[in-house]
Amino acid sequence: MTSYTAEIIAVGTELLLGNTANTDAQDVSQLLSELGINVFFHTVVGDNPERLKQAVNIAKGRADIIITTGGLGPTYDDLTKQTLAEAFGRRLVFNEDVAEQIRQFFAKRLPTMKMTDNNLRQAELPEGCEIFHNCVGTAPGCAFIAEGKHILMLPGPPRECREMLKSCVEPYLRKLSKDEIHSHNIHIFGLGESAVEEKLVSFMQTLRNPSLAPYAKDGEVMLRLTAKAKSRDQAEELMAPIKKTVRSVLGDVVYGVDTNSLEETIFALLSSQGKTIAAAESCTGGLFSKRLTDIPGSSNVFLGSVVAYSDRSKTTLLGVPRKLISEKGAVSQEVALAMAKGARLKFGANIGIGITGIAGPESDSSGQDIGTVFIALSTRTTSYCRSPHIYNDRHRVRTSGANHAFDMVRRLLTGLPVDA
Amino acid sequence: MTSYTAEIIAVGTELLLGNTANTDAQDVSQLLSELGINVFFHTVVGDNPERLKQAVNIAKGRADIIITTGGLGPTYDDLTKQTLAEAFGRRLVFNEDVAEQIRQFFAKRLPTMKMTDNNLRQAELPEGCEIFHNCVGTAPGCAFIAEGKHILMLPGPPRECREMLKSCVEPYLRKLSKDEIHSHNIHIFGLGESAVEEKLVSFMQTLRNPSLAPYAKDGEVMLRLTAKAKSRDQAEELMAPIKKTVRSVLGDVVYGVDTNSLEETIFALLSSQGKTIAAAESCTGGLFSKRLTDIPGSSNVFLGSVVAYSDRSKTTLLGVPRKLISEKGAVSQEVALAMAKGARLKFGANIGIGITGIAGPESDSSGQDIGTVFIALSTRTTSYCRSPHIYNDRHRVRTSGANHAFDMVRRLLTGLPVDA
Repeated sequence: MTSYTAEIIAVGTELLLGNTANTDAQDVSQLLSELGINVFFHTVVGDNPERLKQAVNIAKGRADIIITTGGLGPTYDDLTKQTLAEAFGRRLVFNEDVAEQIRQFFAKRLPTMKMTDNNLRQAELPEGCEIFHNCVGTAPGCAFIAEGKHILMLPGPPRECREMLKSCVEPYLRKLSKDEIHSHNIHIFGLGESAVEEKLVSFMQTLRNPSLAPYAKDGEVMLRLTAKAKSRDQAEELMAPIKKTVRSVLGDVVYGVDTNSLEETIFALLSSQGKTIAAAESCTGGLFSKRLTDIPGSSNVFLGSVVAYSDRSKTTLLGVPRKLISEKGAVSQEVALAMAKGARLKFGANIGIGITGIAGPESDSSGQDIGTVFIALSTRTTSYCRSPHIYNDRHRVRTSGANHAFDMVRRLLTGLPVDA
Repeated sequence: MTSYTAEIIAVGTELLLGNTANTDAQDVSQLLSELGINVFFHTVVGDNPERLKQAVNIAKGRADIIITTGGLGPTYDDLTKQTLAEAFGRRLVFNEDVAEQIRQFFAKRLPTMKMTDNNLRQAELPEGCEIFHNCVGTAPGCAFIAEGKHILMLPGPPRECREMLKSCVEPYLRKLSKDEIHSHNIHIFGLGESAVEEKLVSFMQTLRNPSLAPYAKDGEVMLRLTAKAKSRDQAEELMAPIKKTVRSVLGDVVYGVDTNSLEETIFALLSSQGKTIAAAESCTGGLFSKRLTDIPGSSNVFLGSVVAYSDRSKTTLLGVPRKLISEKGAVSQEVALAMAKGARLKFGANIGIGITGIAGPESDSSGQDIGTVFIALSTRTTSYCRSPHIYNDRHRVRTSGANHAFDMVRRLLTGLPVDA
């Protein structure tokens, strides 16, 4: 069976003005990608029937499935149904069942709001369509087949669109396809995108199904592995040897598969090993703690931190000897190690982290280079310190400083060399 | 003069797979909207030269300005420059200056990373183009004129794209138009979007030039005021009375005009008044500190903080009496006030902040509602505590907790009621 091609047309002037990002297209694309339906184009068009018609005509020429989002509401500039029906020679028909649902919705959920007549325009639908019930709003979606194409119309508000994707669109589209698509995300820290690609390029180019593609973000690299097959088992069977090859080529810079982030990786390791952590942050200014506490349940492993932005607080709150700071400088391996130890002892944690560096845009009195960072880890029996070269941009220095700290914890808890 | 029409083409298979939302198109659209340039279509296309060419040919027929984002990187699937140059009959020429910048970038900022040859592919640019320097990455952007159209190519990573929009694209496009567009952003904290709109709706509807539009984000509201005129002076003259009206209608919930954020507002106030601040964070877990230290130069006013995630650390590091915690609970007005005072004294700061609450997704042993938050402020002579109702979502509770702390500092330093 050849696979289907879909095109997503988002309708809404607010998207063209930059008021909102087109998250509906992202949500629809994710579903289609999971279902193995190709998406070659997204189009965004304003609340303008002429230009919407133009976009629909272009989509007709290159897609089997056309999915619109937005423009189904009750106001005069909501013209998607009228325009699509016209483009495919369908009449709009008033549906009494839908009208009754809309009346009920108002009566029950918005008793203080008066239902205006234009709300009932939402009950006009293309003749012979399948109706997609809207569980969280009033505008129903729908699907019909015309000129050999599947036309699906979904509401624009992201929550309504997402709900309808799950409850109506997925079952509708699953019936069309025999293939399934499954994927894994392989997460890498400690190797840049070009270096990852250089190591894997010849291998990647031989692959068609599964496919392997790299993405870079915030100092990390992700490889997405995707397979198309008759079943999940078959897809997994296709992907298993590729995963193995990637791991053997890249080694221990691969920190996880299908995890969300470095911090979630160490959160899971700390939880399962029953260990606690505390931190002393200087240049990262709370970013390490903020990222760890973004995770629900982090209070089970994270005891706290001191953001020691002043030299004085490094001494009074963390017990870093004043003499050490004046002799070695606040940004030094020695002070990073003393901060890590101080954090561990003050909070009574198993692992202490110390981060000190110069995030810029200006250096401190020591005149060291911006981007100089020391990241230290302390346990009862051992300690480590890293000083990576970081690109001198405040945001990157801070992000990368926290990333390195998370990576050191991951390596400690999985028995890998921590300094690497 | 008739106004220009632009089309945005985002290039990247990751967008069609739904891995990321097309925020670049949103950023570009916002700028174009400010400049009074019409945008009628966005298109997204994958890393595929045939389909990119198809999209470019369609755009040629309906836009004066074509702006692409993405596909400028060093890897083999980055094909935007080649495809656009071909579509408009231009050769790609190796630019030695750009190559040297890329070499320098690697030598200076990433000395431990090996520059691979494919990085130099980024120095190949369409003959006769204007080069847009990339301040935060290696891939330069560019602009050229062909077949009466302006073609602009920008990098895909959002930070790089945003930087280039400000430093290169805005000046380039401003030269095209005889009318100038100027705008101001009016920032509001303490009133929701619908409440702002309700207070201003009849006034907003009478406006055409200047225009006034509300945007909501992360618990704040922003009003964008935009005027089109022959000069900046004329635009300012048009906007001045509107600004005045908005301020008089909304009052002191307006915290700034053309500022970046609540934290930048208090950073400026602290700096100009020569005051210092320190914090004790529980449920915000470092977010208050992280946001303040995102600002370059924050070390002049921010002395540090204690992220006291465990009750023990509230006592040992901040001096909150153990008895107070057991009697009143860790999430209470009394403990918030004691934390604020502790932070002020331990760091020797003029102002101390204490934040304690239940961010969820689960409550603590006290069984209080998720979303219960106490935010306290302490100075040598006075103290305040707020306990706003926050919608119970971990991200919102944390963001809003930090926002309220910043707002209290702003009110203290500008002589407004702090509890409001």
